[in-house]
Amino acid sequence: MRKETAEEKRQRLLGLAKASLSDVYSGSEHSIAQAIASYNELEKTRNLVHEKLEEWYGIFFPELKLSNQLTYARFVAEFGADKKAAAADDLAKLLGTAADAVSRQAAQSIGREPTAEEFEQLRALAQLEVSIADTQAMLDKYLDSSTKKLMPNITYLIDYKVAAELLGRAGSLGKLATMPSGTVQLLGAEKALFKHIKFGTKPPKYGTLFKLQQVGGAGRRERGRIARIYATKIAIAARADAITKNFIADKLKEQIDKAISMQREHPPRPDCPGTAPVGGNGWKSRPQRQGNQHGFRPNRPRRYNRR
Amino acid sequence: MRKETAEEKRQRLLGLAKASLSDVYSGSEHSIAQAIASYNELEKTRNLVHEKLEEWYGIFFPELKLSNQLTYARFVAEFGADKKAAAADDLAKLLGTAADAVSRQAAQSIGREPTAEEFEQLRALAQLEVSIADTQAMLDKYLDSSTKKLMPNITYLIDYKVAAELLGRAGSLGKLATMPSGTVQLLGAEKALFKHIKFGTKPPKYGTLFKLQQVGGAGRRERGRIARIYATKIAIAARADAITKNFIADKLKEQIDKAISMQREHPPRPDCPGTAPVGGNGWKSRPQRQGNQHGFRPNRPRRYNRR
Repeated sequence: MRKETAEEKRQRLLGLAKASLSDVYSGSEHSIAQAIASYNELEKTRNLVHEKLEEWYGIFFPELKLSNQLTYARFVAEFGADKKAAAADDLAKLLGTAADAVSRQAAQSIGREPTAEEFEQLRALAQLEVSIADTQAMLDKYLDSSTKKLMPNITYLIDYKVAAELLGRAGSLGKLATMPSGTVQLLGAEKALFKHIKFGTKPPKYGTLFKLQQVGGAGRRERGRIARIYATKIAIAARADAITKNFIADKLKEQIDKAISMQREHPPRPDCPGTAPVGGNGWKSRPQRQGNQHGFRPNRPRRYNRR
Repeated sequence: MRKETAEEKRQRLLGLAKASLSDVYSGSEHSIAQAIASYNELEKTRNLVHEKLEEWYGIFFPELKLSNQLTYARFVAEFGADKKAAAADDLAKLLGTAADAVSRQAAQSIGREPTAEEFEQLRALAQLEVSIADTQAMLDKYLDSSTKKLMPNITYLIDYKVAAELLGRAGSLGKLATMPSGTVQLLGAEKALFKHIKFGTKPPKYGTLFKLQQVGGAGRRERGRIARIYATKIAIAARADAITKNFIADKLKEQIDKAISMQREHPPRPDCPGTAPVGGNGWKSRPQRQGNQHGFRPNRPRRYNRR
């Protein structure tokens, strides 16, 4: 067999590198990470567009207050041209029980009607907001089905959007599966974590996990402990999803419920701001953390092992 | 005539207040201010959406680099499902001369094709970007016609979008017309101005006016002077637009051209960073500004009248 020239070798190795790169991106996990990032970005975007729409249409109908932003946008697109002329039926279809109040407000409004040109712009903005929301709904549906396929265990334990965000922050399912639970707990809290390490501020108790209704909706004192409980089980579920492919989430779910009810029986002492080990047998008192009134000492790095 | 009761008086005065409020918002100037704000917001929004789209589609076609963001979005929407199958004619219609290079890149791409589900999401994002751009184009057209109608003098001197932004920042045409030219020059530079007053940083030389091609495109040393020249004439044009309604912009334009050519004959001394009065007869040397290495002294307010 003749010896490979340098150029041939280069081409062969380049081919191998390309193939392995293609391989890394062959699964659906990168698309899931992109989808959740896009979803969150669109949520921001839609809010920005809505802000402008409400500010602008506020010139013409300052009395209109609707709690649902999309309903507001649909109102502008449908009835913005002449708010007083809106038919009661159509209004009721869009606004439900609020229709009467709105039509009374429209009759007494101090705002003029927009000109045809102005309304054209307003309608375009309103329709844009609606189509952003439609795109979001589509991404949401995609996330729902694809995360449940890729991560049956994790999505059994927690909301699929939070699962997708954890995946996105970890980089890939393989990486998420090799993370210790403490890292999973603080995914998304990197900034607060490094501020803690560098300046001795309070350590974060949760990152992305705060978006879980079970964590964010819990009392201030127990949130950290509940995030901790979820993180331990998510880390185990990730290993099942990435490696063994077994379904063990029902057992994990039971364990979570048990741990949470256990920590509710041993609540933190009201005068202690920290977290306690779940089911621990009492509290050691800790020395007060040093720092200025904001709990933070600029320019003076904290020793990493100081308690 | 019987005397008004307190309640009747209250109602009458409320009616008057409402009427005067309606009156303030009766003109087109508030819509113009809203339109330019929305336009700028949509520009930001479109960039955010594009970023996500390029990041996501980058998984499937990392080699694709198109300088025009909208062309990129259109490419994804049309050919994203199967980049290799794109017909040469269709590609050429969208990409022009770049079509050949792109189709060669597509044939050798290391990215896989997106699944049907993934492509659905990508196409939705791409179409969203296109419709944001369409809304922008609509707002642009509206701004063009409405500013030229409201401010014939100012828009004769400067770009209509910059004129709209000045109007928006001033609040109304009446307010813009009563502003001294120095205020017009610094509209949009409020933050830098107050930083200058409070901390003694360098004073700003232009705000929104920097967006004028004639100012932003000029050399670093003459920008401030050119902004100054434009501001003086815009202030006069605003008075004509708001009060006398005469068309004097052609004369102002001549004066601007003359002043600029004059300041080109008397350029600033190369070692002096400040601005000189246009056509002034030489330079006084000024004492060096005090401050730390960043040219700014925190927590030590500058005396307002110190030079």
